[in-house]
Amino acid sequence: MEPTVTVLGIAGSLRKDSLNRAALRAAQALAPEGVRVEIFDLDGIPVYNQDDELSPPARVAELKAAVRAADAILFVTPEFNYSIPGVLKNAIDWGSRPYGDSCWQGKPVAVMGASVSPFGSARAQYHLRQCFVFLDMHPLNKPEVMIGGAAQKFDAAGNLTDERIGKSIQDLLAALAAWTRRLR
Amino acid sequence: MEPTVTVLGIAGSLRKDSLNRAALRAAQALAPEGVRVEIFDLDGIPVYNQDDELSPPARVAELKAAVRAADAILFVTPEFNYSIPGVLKNAIDWGSRPYGDSCWQGKPVAVMGASVSPFGSARAQYHLRQCFVFLDMHPLNKPEVMIGGAAQKFDAAGNLTDERIGKSIQDLLAALAAWTRRLR
Amino acid sequence: MEPTVTVLGIAGSLRKDSLNRAALRAAQALAPEGVRVEIFDLDGIPVYNQDDELSPPARVAELKAAVRAADAILFVTPEFNYSIPGVLKNAIDWGSRPYGDSCWQGKPVAVMGASVSPFGSARAQYHLRQCFVFLDMHPLNKPEVMIGGAAQKFDAAGNLTDERIGKSIQDLLAALAAWTRRLR
Amino acid sequence: MEPTVTVLGIAGSLRKDSLNRAALRAAQALAPEGVRVEIFDLDGIPVYNQDDELSPPARVAELKAAVRAADAILFVTPEFNYSIPGVLKNAIDWGSRPYGDSCWQGKPVAVMGASVSPFGSARAQYHLRQCFVFLDMHPLNKPEVMIGGAAQKFDAAGNLTDERIGKSIQDLLAALAAWTRRLR
Repeated sequence: MEPTVTVLGIAGSLRKDSLNRAALRAAQALAPEGVRVEIFDLDGIPVYNQDDELSPPARVAELKAAVRAADAILFVTPEFNYSIPGVLKNAIDWGSRPYGDSCWQGKPVAVMGASVSPFGSARAQYHLRQCFVFLDMHPLNKPEVMIGGAAQKFDAAGNLTDERIGKSIQDLLAALAAWTRRLR
Repeated sequence: MEPTVTVLGIAGSLRKDSLNRAALRAAQALAPEGVRVEIFDLDGIPVYNQDDELSPPARVAELKAAVRAADAILFVTPEFNYSIPGVLKNAIDWGSRPYGDSCWQGKPVAVMGASVSPFGSARAQYHLRQCFVFLDMHPLNKPEVMIGGAAQKFDAAGNLTDERIGKSIQDLLAALAAWTRRLR
Repeated sequence: MEPTVTVLGIAGSLRKDSLNRAALRAAQALAPEGVRVEIFDLDGIPVYNQDDELSPPARVAELKAAVRAADAILFVTPEFNYSIPGVLKNAIDWGSRPYGDSCWQGKPVAVMGASVSPFGSARAQYHLRQCFVFLDMHPLNKPEVMIGGAAQKFDAAGNLTDERIGKSIQDLLAALAAWTRRLR
Repeated sequence: MEPTVTVLGIAGSLRKDSLNRAALRAAQALAPEGVRVEIFDLDGIPVYNQDDELSPPARVAELKAAVRAADAILFVTPEFNYSIPGVLKNAIDWGSRPYGDSCWQGKPVAVMGASVSPFGSARAQYHLRQCFVFLDMHPLNKPEVMIGGAAQKFDAAGNLTDERIGKSIQDLLAALAAWTRRLR
């Protein structure tokens, strides 16, 4: 039997009722056999300042430890102003520093996201993929999960109610696990 | 005589000795006749949380007021991980919210940046330009100012020492002023 | 009375029943008062070779003359492989050469597109916008017209049957005309 | 002993004295042990027309066969107008069609390029990387080979004269071979 693939899920929003946080919880609940999704909340990570990077805030150290402990990363990104939310990019920046001590190096990675617009954060996702080149992460190509019109896809408690999307999230996790095993 | 064009300069770094902050100070000192560059520091702007956007932090209100008072915007951006620094994107996100109350709407805008790599933050600059489509800002096309190998272009006190770059910054400001007048 | 704004429309497909060609014909038919849309077909433009650029094919000379005669440009782009179709990019490349003799320089420009996927050629449209920086064209920000699921939006004869999309195309043309007048 | 990795190199230019063709020939000559670089010229591939894709030109069939026979792909791309040259994108489009019969599917891929500007075709390279997501190709992250100021890096006969660049091309090929073996 193959060992379980541990995926660290990071949602790019601090909003309590964030649809992207809800989508990440759905991924956790829907994880197929052989995949475990753990969630890291970005609350408590301050704005990056290079002057502080040699003695980073405790929450940043926790982020980097959690990333290093995971087999693969799943970013669940909103889209702000046609790009990556500052809150998510800021966490990625902290994790990549100081020079030579990036936690992202070599990790398999997948991307999904939700938005109220029809495009499901697509534009943010392609900007993230450009970051992966520098970070030397190995992105999954497909399936791409872009949850458009997201306000109608979750109930008031934040539970995903759209079966087709649930299936695509499961397919994403299964493909990420297979990709992770292939890269070992 | 044409009235002075007031440009609000925003550098995307909090580092005390930031080369991009130094480049913005150089722009302020080099501004051609008819252009005044004011500087807004991003210190004190916390990580964006949509739950707080209806009662934003005081520093965010100050940012939005300064942007609205300016005729044009100049972003001076580092490049982190082949994209916009989280610290700068975070400020842009705050300024664009809440829905219907963006401070960026309709502003003429120019971009420059510095990096120790040879590319002078080019990749971050193109991601910024994609944001401008959503923000409905009007970007200057040329000149593009990308200060590569930036550590060698400033002295220990942060003064720009490269004349050719100084000239290109002046050209950028003159072109931004002309673009701003054309769009009036 | 304001003089008519002449828009040259270029669809990025050679296919006889192309949905993007159909969308461009719809734009021509729907042009609001004060706007005239002329169509340039890309048939007959061969693959670019720099060795031939000083004596370009006749069809390339026709393209450049038509672009120069127009007040503004409208690209109607399919999306191939998440970017600009080769056929359209090839025509843009021809028009931009030889060095110093680009026909695109300074033109106001708008983008629209159709695809059978839900995204309506969005990814190709953002790549086009990056080209405009180099070409020194002045892109309209909004509205963005991205006709997703396009096979259902036209009848068998290639007539646009979706009123909402027709309205957005009219809005695009009206905004392009206003933008063109503003830049005069 | 590991079997040889066969890399198909495709330069995105038809110009006889193309610096990118010269860079590809340099790659062929510099290939490290265990790597063989074959070259496919894009001459003779006409502009794509979907109406012809079920009976494609002979040269397109040859391209698809050569791609399928290779273990990995190396694109050597110029940059035209801040994006992929039409000539190269056109060949990629042909190879990806008709639907379900793409030759690119699943191939490991690396990118390099040369330009007279300082950026060495970087902007074209990132657009190519976005295509790889759709094409389901597996791109090498590093090293990135961007030959800026390329006119000074080759002699009149098109021979690479810059040792540092030669070394980076060798490193690229070695890394592509290792990546190809890892993905087997």
